[in-house]
Amino acid sequence: MSTENLDISRRKLLGTVGAAGATGLALGAAGGAAAYAAGSQPAGTALASVGSTAVPFRGTHQAGILQPLQARGHLVAFDLAPGAGRKEAVALMRRWSAVAERLMAGEPAGPGDTGVALDAGPSSLTVTFGFGASFFDRTGLVARRPAELDPLPAFSSDRLDAGRSNGDLWVQIGADDALVAFHALRAVQKEAGAAARVRWQMNGFNRSPGATARPMTARNLMGQVDGSRNPKPSEPDFQKRIFVAAGGDQPWMTGGSYAVVRRIRMLLDDWEKLPPERQERVIGRRKSDGAPLTGGGETSELDLDRTGPDGKPVVPADAHARISAPEQNGGAAMLRRPFSFHDGIGADGTPDAGLLFIAWQADPRRGFVPVQRKLDRGDALSPFIRHEASGLFAVPGGPGAGEYVGQRLLEA
Amino acid sequence: MSTENLDISRRKLLGTVGAAGATGLALGAAGGAAAYAAGSQPAGTALASVGSTAVPFRGTHQAGILQPLQARGHLVAFDLAPGAGRKEAVALMRRWSAVAERLMAGEPAGPGDTGVALDAGPSSLTVTFGFGASFFDRTGLVARRPAELDPLPAFSSDRLDAGRSNGDLWVQIGADDALVAFHALRAVQKEAGAAARVRWQMNGFNRSPGATARPMTARNLMGQVDGSRNPKPSEPDFQKRIFVAAGGDQPWMTGGSYAVVRRIRMLLDDWEKLPPERQERVIGRRKSDGAPLTGGGETSELDLDRTGPDGKPVVPADAHARISAPEQNGGAAMLRRPFSFHDGIGADGTPDAGLLFIAWQADPRRGFVPVQRKLDRGDALSPFIRHEASGLFAVPGGPGAGEYVGQRLLEA
Repeated sequence: MSTENLDISRRKLLGTVGAAGATGLALGAAGGAAAYAAGSQPAGTALASVGSTAVPFRGTHQAGILQPLQARGHLVAFDLAPGAGRKEAVALMRRWSAVAERLMAGEPAGPGDTGVALDAGPSSLTVTFGFGASFFDRTGLVARRPAELDPLPAFSSDRLDAGRSNGDLWVQIGADDALVAFHALRAVQKEAGAAARVRWQMNGFNRSPGATARPMTARNLMGQVDGSRNPKPSEPDFQKRIFVAAGGDQPWMTGGSYAVVRRIRMLLDDWEKLPPERQERVIGRRKSDGAPLTGGGETSELDLDRTGPDGKPVVPADAHARISAPEQNGGAAMLRRPFSFHDGIGADGTPDAGLLFIAWQADPRRGFVPVQRKLDRGDALSPFIRHEASGLFAVPGGPGAGEYVGQRLLEA
Repeated sequence: MSTENLDISRRKLLGTVGAAGATGLALGAAGGAAAYAAGSQPAGTALASVGSTAVPFRGTHQAGILQPLQARGHLVAFDLAPGAGRKEAVALMRRWSAVAERLMAGEPAGPGDTGVALDAGPSSLTVTFGFGASFFDRTGLVARRPAELDPLPAFSSDRLDAGRSNGDLWVQIGADDALVAFHALRAVQKEAGAAARVRWQMNGFNRSPGATARPMTARNLMGQVDGSRNPKPSEPDFQKRIFVAAGGDQPWMTGGSYAVVRRIRMLLDDWEKLPPERQERVIGRRKSDGAPLTGGGETSELDLDRTGPDGKPVVPADAHARISAPEQNGGAAMLRRPFSFHDGIGADGTPDAGLLFIAWQADPRRGFVPVQRKLDRGDALSPFIRHEASGLFAVPGGPGAGEYVGQRLLEA
């Protein structure tokens, strides 16, 4: 693909977004409906390929929250280096923002680019930046630390590895091509320079574009459709539940969101021993299509009051879908946008696989925390999963023209 | 996608193969030229999607050798369980063949299928089986062990981990969808039952279909085009170099091939410090398009005699492409069909990433071994790579109607 074609594609895409008066979401939808033809391809169809879909770096929200699930993802947390403070953080966020913008446009990272993404377009690449609670201590910005970043409570099912949890800075990278994602990861690591060092790093994946004709609700490694009750942008209170509204205590977070990140190991050897009917009762949904056990399709509401011939509820009292249902949690809502992970065989001989759970919300105290508290008490799924790592990050709004990510925090 | 559509697709595909009088290769080509449209899709285009491309299980050669690179791969080696011998191996190969055939057709693995591949088609899934040298001891078949399976010589740059090397049995799984590949891996593990246990397991990836409009010569994580000199099926001696001809010492290997598997760690922190011009001189090819430094395009021959204004060879004496060139190795040829790997950050803080090198040949003593011996002595690339694991497996020909893989070995 020539740079010129790419530039044209980007302008078209940006035009689409502008016309929709929207954020990256409209773009993502355009990308999702794209057609792809391998091999030689008339130049005019370049826009439509998996590779040439570009997501804009600038906007009300950062990219990587509202876009469709991507085939490949990397999560990486950094700690500021000893001695580094606010000044180094400013320079780092400037460098990271500049490289993210170039990469998301399908351009090289800079001189000496590794070349790993050559041949491919941006492939829906997104690079998303967040700040952990410790970042505010390190940079002398404690007064600007949002109460939403207070540590998550401990849950009885937590088996957290501190070395793979939290961190001063968090970067989420997603793309529909694994080499494009890896290229971005290396570029982000390189730009960290002496200012920050990697604390932990995780890899994940989702279905490839085109592997299914179904709309892409994720299926997880337990074989369950996962995300059916995700709030939808068309719902009237979507914005205020997922993104921080203007006029709050921390103006720099306007348009931002809080990401709860959990490495949830699935105990697949145990899970797969359950017959599918038992699995469906654990979840409360059909395995085939994600429909509630009370019938309908994937998007039908669960009929939580319905009882079967035996007088018991059709959706069992401890079913995961019942306990986590928004109706059962005062409307608590979070936008889950996960990656599956599979890191081979664990030290105990079982698959080191599961879900890199990433949930977005305007306030984790009214999103992840109440739902997880409830799941922690009585979820039938608990014996089959283990939370192994945890992070909570403040992800500021998207950068405006000429801004870098986090500028409103660091330079206010 | 309905099962019916899939069946029709398969028949069409099988028809294509029959017409070409060929093996999976024709199929792969058909798949590669397919067009993909996400979202709602007229039934007639199902054949053309990334998901619905099926590779036949039966044929002259096993699948997974001649097919185009797949976006996701798993390599897994098993050792027969203590006490298991030929009888258990026969039953295992029957079970594995049956499940591989079902999965490659996009069908469930069997009752109690995990459901992880639901919604997706077969997505070019291939499952390939091989036997390590130790398999013949375990099954009392030493007389049928090919001389080609003699242990590979030690190389000075080897840093091999025995626990991640060799094994009685080897399975290569590839697919264009990560969940389809994972689903197959779990099914293969489950069918191993009490007969065999996992010795090692590795995950890899290649570019996603549609991420590039270029023909899919792989680009590796060093950013180099990798595989330009791969022998092509159109070359007159391709078959005899890659596949075992009829009439050899071990008739059960007719149509088979030997796989050399090396986990090659790339020392990316060191490599990426080299300026791109230096990298190009290490390789002997341009980074942008893989063309030789003596000019032309990716498929042009290297002009090994050409000297520059300084009187030195344009392709340096120790350049990787010179040392590994078939002309420099008595025509030694192997078909390299790798996956990249990235397992996060290694214990030493550097990226645990590189190449799952998989090379196919009729005889490793006239393929991998002489080339690697030569590279071992003077390859400019050596300081930047480390061979961390090694395997050599006899991969029998594809199963005929009613046969299981390896039947001609186990029941002759």
